[in-house]
Amino acid sequence: MKFSKRIESCELSPIRKFRPYMVAAQEKGRKVYHLNIGQPDVETPQVFFDAVRDFSDKVLEYAPSYGVDEFVEAVRDYYTDLGFPIQKDDILATYGGSEALQILFSCLLEEGDEVLIPEPYYPNYDTFIRVTGGKIRPIPTSAEEGYRYATREKIEPLINEHTRAILITSPGNPTGVVLTDEEMRLLADLAVEHDLCLISDEVYRELIYGDRKPTSMLAFEDVAEQVVVVDSVSKRFSATGSRVGMLVSRNRELMGHAMKICQGRLCTATLDQVGAAALYRNMTPAYYEQMREEYCRRRDAVVEGLQKIPGVKFRVPEGAFYLMVTLPVDDAEKLLYFLLEEFADNDETVMYAPGRGFYATEGLGRNEIRIAYVIRPEELTRAMELLGLGIQAYLVKKENV
Amino acid sequence: MKFSKRIESCELSPIRKFRPYMVAAQEKGRKVYHLNIGQPDVETPQVFFDAVRDFSDKVLEYAPSYGVDEFVEAVRDYYTDLGFPIQKDDILATYGGSEALQILFSCLLEEGDEVLIPEPYYPNYDTFIRVTGGKIRPIPTSAEEGYRYATREKIEPLINEHTRAILITSPGNPTGVVLTDEEMRLLADLAVEHDLCLISDEVYRELIYGDRKPTSMLAFEDVAEQVVVVDSVSKRFSATGSRVGMLVSRNRELMGHAMKICQGRLCTATLDQVGAAALYRNMTPAYYEQMREEYCRRRDAVVEGLQKIPGVKFRVPEGAFYLMVTLPVDDAEKLLYFLLEEFADNDETVMYAPGRGFYATEGLGRNEIRIAYVIRPEELTRAMELLGLGIQAYLVKKENV
Repeated sequence: MKFSKRIESCELSPIRKFRPYMVAAQEKGRKVYHLNIGQPDVETPQVFFDAVRDFSDKVLEYAPSYGVDEFVEAVRDYYTDLGFPIQKDDILATYGGSEALQILFSCLLEEGDEVLIPEPYYPNYDTFIRVTGGKIRPIPTSAEEGYRYATREKIEPLINEHTRAILITSPGNPTGVVLTDEEMRLLADLAVEHDLCLISDEVYRELIYGDRKPTSMLAFEDVAEQVVVVDSVSKRFSATGSRVGMLVSRNRELMGHAMKICQGRLCTATLDQVGAAALYRNMTPAYYEQMREEYCRRRDAVVEGLQKIPGVKFRVPEGAFYLMVTLPVDDAEKLLYFLLEEFADNDETVMYAPGRGFYATEGLGRNEIRIAYVIRPEELTRAMELLGLGIQAYLVKKENV
Repeated sequence: MKFSKRIESCELSPIRKFRPYMVAAQEKGRKVYHLNIGQPDVETPQVFFDAVRDFSDKVLEYAPSYGVDEFVEAVRDYYTDLGFPIQKDDILATYGGSEALQILFSCLLEEGDEVLIPEPYYPNYDTFIRVTGGKIRPIPTSAEEGYRYATREKIEPLINEHTRAILITSPGNPTGVVLTDEEMRLLADLAVEHDLCLISDEVYRELIYGDRKPTSMLAFEDVAEQVVVVDSVSKRFSATGSRVGMLVSRNRELMGHAMKICQGRLCTATLDQVGAAALYRNMTPAYYEQMREEYCRRRDAVVEGLQKIPGVKFRVPEGAFYLMVTLPVDDAEKLLYFLLEEFADNDETVMYAPGRGFYATEGLGRNEIRIAYVIRPEELTRAMELLGLGIQAYLVKKENV
């Protein structure tokens, strides 16, 4: 049987593919601290489960293709409260942010088309783009510059006749970078000048540290035709397993095309949308504040722990719950195999996502890792200690080989 | 902004696009009998809701990319009980049968590749295939031959160097055709001889009338490498809003490629899979028998009603809950607009899916309709009466124009 070249060029998720080694370590009795995947341990608000339990229809019917009405209305009110009034027709419910991206790339890309994305980036973008026949053209950044990318000098030379979109993530996964208002304005201007789709992945919107307010590319009403926002309840409400996300755009033509795919796959899960509607309806500013404070404590625990490890380099993240760290090793994948297969301290070890899969450019990211700080501060302190001990043991072993 | 030619060539769902006219009719106070969409009124078994309510995790976490373990195990046992032993690795949970198809086409198709599908077919196949750049090559059938297609003479001449797969649906949507064992064997042979993927959409498996037992293309173990089954809980358990489906195949290479996409979109909804596992665990042969009997009564009500309408032609369906009907009108879409906008009998009217969208061949299906018999027998009797009255009124109006 012949498979498409597109799928043959895809890889398994660099975040998920190390799972079997983790399972093997656990079966040996090891405790593994998970810093590898963005699965927070924060409890899902009870209102989600209550709304699902209160669902009393006798038949679990298809939802409308655009989404369950009460969910779409709740999302609309959420955006309006944030200061970005949108219409009901500007929203399409999707299976998490993931499907929103899959739909967008199907609407935009053909064989050979390009999407500009700052690297390092969320690796699944690559899979979604490759299956359409498109490819990522990376906007280069560096650890030294704190992974910032939103300048005309960096981006404009990369735009060519194949460029269809710029995809940004702010607050950023995996870097924790949060765009400034000036940087957002520049991206909006570039999208208009070159008639590109500006895809803004804003699933970590509320997770910002310091004084900035949650914002959105929807703020730039003058470029409404270029902007499409990808959003999700997963991280905002710690409900990753609900798979409720959305596309938000005021571009009617784009939404019309997206609707063709939404109707084709009929709808997304009814009950999860009912639960998600309750999340949006019942969440107060205090909820977001508390979540921000919790993640801020976690970030601080990671930063404090990393500062004790000789030779590591990193920037303090401004948002989301990730950071990229440069390690004093040649290959972070080899170190990860060592940590899962050989190393243990008091029967404990630690797991992260190696950096290579976050880069399109060959050779980059080999000595970098992504840490997801999604566990409690005291666990993070221990995890950083284990990382330091593991690096030390790995370097000693290498010297002795 | 430039959109892909692929999405521009797609259309809105021919099943869903008439919804606004139905809403308008309802707003005028009309009762509309829905025969247009495969949304059964049968109650979803209570075990689904009970399992969802009993879910007691505090964090609604990502499921594994292949599916929630208890769901995958339940599906495996279901297939084993049917007489088709499969391994856990032969199953990937998907967002309904729809995503299973989207994943498959991404694994198989490139620009210009072809999928053989008997027409009339489920229209969303066309959308899923077009967004990959592929296209449907229809296997012709006719109302006179009862829409049967599985002969070497009909299929083999259509196979060329672009053909990648044969997609069949049995029991069939929209025709109600159920393949015989001999027909299934022939399709299996053709797939092997021409090294094609044989995609078998079996979401209506248990919905067969008469003496045949539920079966599957998995029965042909000698062609296991060619066969992939698309399945779903939607129709089997009247749980369309759960969006729980699956890919089933013993072809490891295919499943490896499919896993890349599954990992990319992370997972499908956790709670719905928990509910679906309970459906599979708790369903008895008596449940399926009762469901079959109910749909058999509905089929009989439709058939009896249709026999009273002058000039209509149809075959009695052998399975699923649909049938194609040839009407004594020039254009079934025009009749549908008439039924929704002008016609009423005692403030009631009827809605169906026009046949044109079920055909790839230009000009076919214009005087055909698909009826979904998903409401109670007495309602179906009235709906057929309304269809007859509507046709009569439409023909009188046309004569007078």
